[in-house]
Amino acid sequence: MATIRRLARGDWDDWRALWAGYLAFYRAELRDETSAATFDRLCAGADGMFGLLALDDAGRGIGMANCVVHPTTWSRQPKCYLEDLFVAPSSRGHDVGRALLEAVKQAGTERGAGQVYWHTQQYNGRARSLYDQVARPTSFVVYEM
Amino acid sequence: MATIRRLARGDWDDWRALWAGYLAFYRAELRDETSAATFDRLCAGADGMFGLLALDDAGRGIGMANCVVHPTTWSRQPKCYLEDLFVAPSSRGHDVGRALLEAVKQAGTERGAGQVYWHTQQYNGRARSLYDQVARPTSFVVYEM
Amino acid sequence: MATIRRLARGDWDDWRALWAGYLAFYRAELRDETSAATFDRLCAGADGMFGLLALDDAGRGIGMANCVVHPTTWSRQPKCYLEDLFVAPSSRGHDVGRALLEAVKQAGTERGAGQVYWHTQQYNGRARSLYDQVARPTSFVVYEM
Amino acid sequence: MATIRRLARGDWDDWRALWAGYLAFYRAELRDETSAATFDRLCAGADGMFGLLALDDAGRGIGMANCVVHPTTWSRQPKCYLEDLFVAPSSRGHDVGRALLEAVKQAGTERGAGQVYWHTQQYNGRARSLYDQVARPTSFVVYEM
Repeated sequence: MATIRRLARGDWDDWRALWAGYLAFYRAELRDETSAATFDRLCAGADGMFGLLALDDAGRGIGMANCVVHPTTWSRQPKCYLEDLFVAPSSRGHDVGRALLEAVKQAGTERGAGQVYWHTQQYNGRARSLYDQVARPTSFVVYEM
Repeated sequence: MATIRRLARGDWDDWRALWAGYLAFYRAELRDETSAATFDRLCAGADGMFGLLALDDAGRGIGMANCVVHPTTWSRQPKCYLEDLFVAPSSRGHDVGRALLEAVKQAGTERGAGQVYWHTQQYNGRARSLYDQVARPTSFVVYEM
Repeated sequence: MATIRRLARGDWDDWRALWAGYLAFYRAELRDETSAATFDRLCAGADGMFGLLALDDAGRGIGMANCVVHPTTWSRQPKCYLEDLFVAPSSRGHDVGRALLEAVKQAGTERGAGQVYWHTQQYNGRARSLYDQVARPTSFVVYEM
Repeated sequence: MATIRRLARGDWDDWRALWAGYLAFYRAELRDETSAATFDRLCAGADGMFGLLALDDAGRGIGMANCVVHPTTWSRQPKCYLEDLFVAPSSRGHDVGRALLEAVKQAGTERGAGQVYWHTQQYNGRARSLYDQVARPTSFVVYEM
């Protein structure tokens, strides 16, 4: 069973490896300085951003969740946007993703957020079969401009 | 053709009517004090929130866009979340929605946002037929927890 | 009941009005010379293109179908791509769309096409409720580059 | 890194193997004479058809793209329909698919096509995660009759 805790400055090597796996999944490339800046902001808890890290029994980082708490027009409470979720391929099938989602919900609540939301590819069956267990699918799709 | 400008304190009556129409579309109810607080925050430009109002030739409010600029893990630039978009039913078919979207893009850019995104019901044909012309549909769906 | 026949040079006024309604549905604009060139090619039956027109009892154009017959890698027979289908709003609910689809199938067969296919917005419930009656939905979505 | 070039008569053995893998993916069967005729037409560049082949460092065919350039009613420029795309399973994960897509775009442009489009199963996550990086998903689904 994974242990989940707040991301900290000393987690750079673990986080960077997870982040690289996550970007590779999306076939995306990002400049190193952007990744480093994101890590710094997640650790600092600045601008509503925070990160969570899942650790295995040996204390190695095996999953990450990156979040942004931001205001919403629908409530005086903010919302928590789970922008990135990733579990190392070798650690899948052990409920690490579920544990991260529950920890995000709790961390969001502690920051006053009435709701956590996230985006996922409609065709990502593996991820959605987990999400459908612990969260609500909506009828919303995402547009970008 | 509609005129678009920043939402201001004096727009309460117009905005409240549009907001009520918007909530009715989603069959949602909100406490008056929440609506009032949202209006105040949009006008103040606090916490990355801002509002735009579309006016007809007589200066009446016929459309609104409510936005939240928030940080993102993928860039040092923030993103602009267009949380609410509404055009009064009697003013549809005259490109007010398109004008609002373009004004949101510009206002987001002025606030440093590299991207505007929003959520829409996948079955909302009327809205999507507009969005498909001026923006990019994505493969993402939305989950809530 | 509508009469369906091949599009001819004398149909320009009727076709142009239907084409304008069709473009407005997609909120699209096209240069007049492009529309005129398309009409000419549809009438000439050049490059595998052909058009069908639906007429009411008074001989007025109330619907159109624009098609392109092109080769396919899956068969030595060509395919017929139904690129545009439109029925005037005031003539809907009278099976004009269905009659056009059946006429397209027949016209495609006469040109050797083993299959007719077309694209429709996934959220266009009105159109799809007809298509599901006379054709097969597929699991395919469309990408553009 | 793969080399991409026009399909040629001498590629029959390589192309046939890729084509067989592609048909197996769709659990489809085709008569040998149809496959041979398709290969001939792709090589000849007849009727707007053309093929591209991806080769590894040893000159073996590891990917293919089969295309049809056809007229469209929306433009005087034709469109390029990418009808078949396949990368040998043992060569995946090395951006061969991306290289083929970019080569198709360029080859289509050389033939005057203003746009490349293709169909993919909405649930084909592996393919779509690539397509979402280099192309635009649309709101269109495909019907057949």
